[in-house]
Amino acid sequence: MNVHAMALSARESFLDLSVSSAAIRNQSLKCLAEQLEKDQDVIFSANETDLLEAEKDGLAKPLLHRLVFGREKLNQVIKGLISLESLEDPIGKTIFCNEITEDLKLYRVTCPIGVLGVIFESRPDALIQISSLGIKSGNAVLLKGGKEALRTNQALCASVQKALESAGLPKDSVQLMETREDVSEMLKEDQLIDLIIPRGSNAFVRYIMNNSHIPVLGHSDGICHVYVDSQADLQKALRVSIDSKVQNVSVCNAMETLLVHRDIAASFLPLFAEKAEKAGVLLMGDSEAQKIISCKEATEEDWKTEYLDYKLSIRIVSSCKEAVSHINHYGSHHTDCIVTENADTASAFLNGVDSAGVYWNVSTRFADGYVYGLGAEVGIATGKLHARGPMGLDGLTTYKYKLLGNGHILAEMKDGTRSYTHKHLNEKCPI
Amino acid sequence: MNVHAMALSARESFLDLSVSSAAIRNQSLKCLAEQLEKDQDVIFSANETDLLEAEKDGLAKPLLHRLVFGREKLNQVIKGLISLESLEDPIGKTIFCNEITEDLKLYRVTCPIGVLGVIFESRPDALIQISSLGIKSGNAVLLKGGKEALRTNQALCASVQKALESAGLPKDSVQLMETREDVSEMLKEDQLIDLIIPRGSNAFVRYIMNNSHIPVLGHSDGICHVYVDSQADLQKALRVSIDSKVQNVSVCNAMETLLVHRDIAASFLPLFAEKAEKAGVLLMGDSEAQKIISCKEATEEDWKTEYLDYKLSIRIVSSCKEAVSHINHYGSHHTDCIVTENADTASAFLNGVDSAGVYWNVSTRFADGYVYGLGAEVGIATGKLHARGPMGLDGLTTYKYKLLGNGHILAEMKDGTRSYTHKHLNEKCPI
Repeated sequence: MNVHAMALSARESFLDLSVSSAAIRNQSLKCLAEQLEKDQDVIFSANETDLLEAEKDGLAKPLLHRLVFGREKLNQVIKGLISLESLEDPIGKTIFCNEITEDLKLYRVTCPIGVLGVIFESRPDALIQISSLGIKSGNAVLLKGGKEALRTNQALCASVQKALESAGLPKDSVQLMETREDVSEMLKEDQLIDLIIPRGSNAFVRYIMNNSHIPVLGHSDGICHVYVDSQADLQKALRVSIDSKVQNVSVCNAMETLLVHRDIAASFLPLFAEKAEKAGVLLMGDSEAQKIISCKEATEEDWKTEYLDYKLSIRIVSSCKEAVSHINHYGSHHTDCIVTENADTASAFLNGVDSAGVYWNVSTRFADGYVYGLGAEVGIATGKLHARGPMGLDGLTTYKYKLLGNGHILAEMKDGTRSYTHKHLNEKCPI
Repeated sequence: MNVHAMALSARESFLDLSVSSAAIRNQSLKCLAEQLEKDQDVIFSANETDLLEAEKDGLAKPLLHRLVFGREKLNQVIKGLISLESLEDPIGKTIFCNEITEDLKLYRVTCPIGVLGVIFESRPDALIQISSLGIKSGNAVLLKGGKEALRTNQALCASVQKALESAGLPKDSVQLMETREDVSEMLKEDQLIDLIIPRGSNAFVRYIMNNSHIPVLGHSDGICHVYVDSQADLQKALRVSIDSKVQNVSVCNAMETLLVHRDIAASFLPLFAEKAEKAGVLLMGDSEAQKIISCKEATEEDWKTEYLDYKLSIRIVSSCKEAVSHINHYGSHHTDCIVTENADTASAFLNGVDSAGVYWNVSTRFADGYVYGLGAEVGIATGKLHARGPMGLDGLTTYKYKLLGNGHILAEMKDGTRSYTHKHLNEKCPI
């Protein structure tokens, strides 16, 4: 089936899926958990073939590791399905109700977006995670995984489609694209696909954005900052900044630049440098930092770099305002933290920094959908529209306005027969 | 000043504006009302010159009429400013609060989007409306109006900038672009501009979408439908469908296609045709409709056409399901209505139709931000992301996550020192 046909069929499936009850959508998640158990031998054997081929092709060890889909991953995935099933239905929630005039009520009600195109990395468990989030939120999904995981993804997608059918939902609600050319074809389907969610490298996300007129919810760099204010508690600053940098260096919510207020630099930086160096972090500092601790020279380029490594740039600033300016200029609007005991300074920082996550005395590593209590995470958006930061189920919904009247016509509003009441009501939409 | 410099300065202004208090933003609206009174002679005289030039250039009468900015328009605009000032602050509202673990609270809080590029039509009062919505919601705005209104717009923009300065806000929060080339330049500034809102023709909105990587909130066609179900009240159906078509034919929320259930067609269509023809509406029908009333033949092309005129296409369908399919296939996801006395059929229609507005027994002409009680309208979005349907002040906001802790680090969550509580709290963010 070519991608246009897949997209057409996804669109048809969406229209059915979008009117299905929460009970049936949840039922399909339960069926999927059972189906995966039934199909486990097929899945494991497909995965073994993928692993063998990938090893032959010389895939790097960490990537090979991510490719593994065995009993342990299956258990995790099934646990995820059960937990997703138990979450509240994101669809059909009344956001507000306005009475427009007598007997005429307007309801803003959540509904699915439509057809999503999701491109994900080498972990095959992501296929189940994304499919199930799509089904739960009433969206159809066209998936494209890493080519090294193709056989595993095919097996998993077959299980998803069987589960959809068992629950009485259209199987083409979830479909798998197999080649890079498929992705290029998909980018042209702006009449059928409503949203693309690319997961992967920065350059890749940029490529998608530059080559499609379909809206993209993606994530570019994660250049996160910790600013240690002059009124910081030193021990707190040390805990937060070390955790932000070294708890996991290769993730988007790790700190890449440390900003330190001049008045506290001489007491804080030596303590920090000792711990950071013990953890193996290479420090790059501006000229002032270099006078306090031993570190290499940081250049303009360092402030713009997402190292994703045991490497950190350090800059001394003279005020919270200067820290905010640095972050707004060089940052990536992902997650930034201030460490201070002064609530007014914290407030100025949190309101002034133009990022999805603004933290007071907390490690930047908390930027995550599960951690935030959003149930699950589809991705982390660094754009500002629709969804921002870790995107959970509600990021996969939009809304429609339902207007319920009794033969109301605008002519009567214009000629004064009726008048606007514009009253907020605390009511759920009855249909 | 070139557009890049304007965008840079708008971005700087946004950062100040975004941390200003609601009191100061409201104050600037009050200043603007006063400033417009003070500057009225300059504005009226600029408008007279624009009108004279436009007349010389042979601008069509209806457009000339829209270009007028005299005492009457000034009064309207000032009334709008006063009403906007009284609306609740859309910024800093806590959407939800989650306790992540002991002493660690996450708040989702509304905030402005950033720099908006707004392109609007010939009415100069739109400049004041858009600027004031931008200021109220903490966003900086780059404006481009119609070239025939340039002098009036320059005068109005000068008043806006004076008002901003009087209130202590950066004057470059609102700036006016003057040429078509400026718009092309603006489309390239995806690092500085967060959102483009084009108002104007369908083709124009498409052009903007196809020529920029900046997100666009626009509105394409308004192909609205009324479906008269077999269980419709005939008089109600008549009222609603006539109002939807003829109350104003040249607007996006007017009906373009009437769908009628076969079982009621013979009794309903003659009544409708009589009224519609009296109002001067040219009817185009499918072969079945042609057997009941006198009308021209509707072709495939008619179902896809936004007439914006005294013209209507009519199709007979055999079920609500068929009506829903027709609308989802040919419609523009704007506003569609069912007339029926059966609540189950209404529910199937409202949930099945994939449009921003889905109405039960109400004229489609109600799709409007003021009518919806949204305070003001920036535009009507037919896309599904971020904002949908009539866009009020809340469409000009996004949110950030504020996370307030006390030295919380992820390492302690991983090693079990602390555990996730994930409790929903009914709390406002304190900073």
